[in-house]
Amino acid sequence: MLTFVGLGLYGTRDITLRGKDAVDKADYVFAEFYTSKLLGASVEDLEKFFGKKITLLSREEVEKGKILIESASKGNTVLLVAGDPMVATTHVSLKILAEERGIKTEVIHNSSIITAAPGMLGLQHYKFGRIVSIPFPQANYFPTSVYDFLAQNMKMGLHTLLLLDINPRPMTANEGMEILLKMEEKKKLGIINGDTLIAVVARAGAPDAAVKAGYMKDMLKENFGPPLHTLVIPGKLHFAEAEALVKLAHAPKDILEE
Amino acid sequence: MLTFVGLGLYGTRDITLRGKDAVDKADYVFAEFYTSKLLGASVEDLEKFFGKKITLLSREEVEKGKILIESASKGNTVLLVAGDPMVATTHVSLKILAEERGIKTEVIHNSSIITAAPGMLGLQHYKFGRIVSIPFPQANYFPTSVYDFLAQNMKMGLHTLLLLDINPRPMTANEGMEILLKMEEKKKLGIINGDTLIAVVARAGAPDAAVKAGYMKDMLKENFGPPLHTLVIPGKLHFAEAEALVKLAHAPKDILEE
Repeated sequence: MLTFVGLGLYGTRDITLRGKDAVDKADYVFAEFYTSKLLGASVEDLEKFFGKKITLLSREEVEKGKILIESASKGNTVLLVAGDPMVATTHVSLKILAEERGIKTEVIHNSSIITAAPGMLGLQHYKFGRIVSIPFPQANYFPTSVYDFLAQNMKMGLHTLLLLDINPRPMTANEGMEILLKMEEKKKLGIINGDTLIAVVARAGAPDAAVKAGYMKDMLKENFGPPLHTLVIPGKLHFAEAEALVKLAHAPKDILEE
Repeated sequence: MLTFVGLGLYGTRDITLRGKDAVDKADYVFAEFYTSKLLGASVEDLEKFFGKKITLLSREEVEKGKILIESASKGNTVLLVAGDPMVATTHVSLKILAEERGIKTEVIHNSSIITAAPGMLGLQHYKFGRIVSIPFPQANYFPTSVYDFLAQNMKMGLHTLLLLDINPRPMTANEGMEILLKMEEKKKLGIINGDTLIAVVARAGAPDAAVKAGYMKDMLKENFGPPLHTLVIPGKLHFAEAEALVKLAHAPKDILEE
């Protein structure tokens, strides 16, 4: 048996009771923090909390699946994952692989930044376009396809959730905004400038979670504290959404008049 | 203090430890099942589980907020909500209202069908367009704007998550598909017919959760069992996604050749 257990957004107590039950019953407990990170708890914290040894797997070990499949064929095996486990494609492949080998699988869902971030800002889920993800630029590789997707969402008046790279370290909101400006410079679609309204969600699910909305030129000067950070570029705002951004995220009041 | 606690997808044990802590510390516990439903547990089950009286609120009582604000100004008050609490706009308004009255608020996130359904089908989150919601048709009102949004997603090759109405009762996948066909008949955009690939997610998060993908003409004849149901119309499939639909949701194998 292989059970994928979502740890949720931040700390040890974000696991569900069902998730905790699965860990308690497990013969082997693994974790991976490559596809998603849990900022409020280390592997040691989790070991202490569950009273069990946890083996941290590398990206390659998760992708190859050998260790997990072998373990799951011997006993109840849990893979701990931050957020909602099946958001990562690699876990979908692993689930398929396990089932092909005759191993039963189970998924214990949990919260994800995908629903938490819009909710924290008071933006309607129905009005989000496709999610984009901002990778760290590489020496010879500066992908700008995410910029085209952002442009597409903006053209349709939809909000965009922009997830920030977490490898080799979590990207800050400020770095994300600077990369967006560089993409604009390169592609010149005229969609991002200093007057673009943008929102930052910092440490979703943490006791010191924070949201802030404002114009890019002002937001670039702010410090949003420790990771994880997520960006949202709002599209056309319903009045209730604009009000929520002002009340919950201290957006400038002039957005209420637009 | 007013704490919004997400109950997650299905039963009593889907609450997080943090959510359970908040209920344990609460002086007053309320629940609402208008914006989202918990199919695996009744209010009585929850009362027994938490060992506390729970007051079920109507839509109007939640929207007016009077009862909750009064309670939260007297003591620790929890509002239990299925799924992730801030997905519903009415809870965002309530949070703003409470904070304007000087009441501290907290949100305890949980899993939502918005991330669970795509994950159960092995479809990539990055490739979903805007979410649409299929309401029950009224005597003189048959809104088809959702059909335009679906058409927009399809044109861009994006997947569409179609949430089904839960009031006055949960809509079945079959009813949802029939409404889609009626919309097609009315708007004639030529986007939906018997050969359209569609996926059904039934009872996400439940022990008997099930997924099934197939062509609309065949899917219409199937019985997906008790609610809740959710539909997904896949856009352009990556090979790994097509494979996941075949392996996890028994989609016809010919989708691998397209």
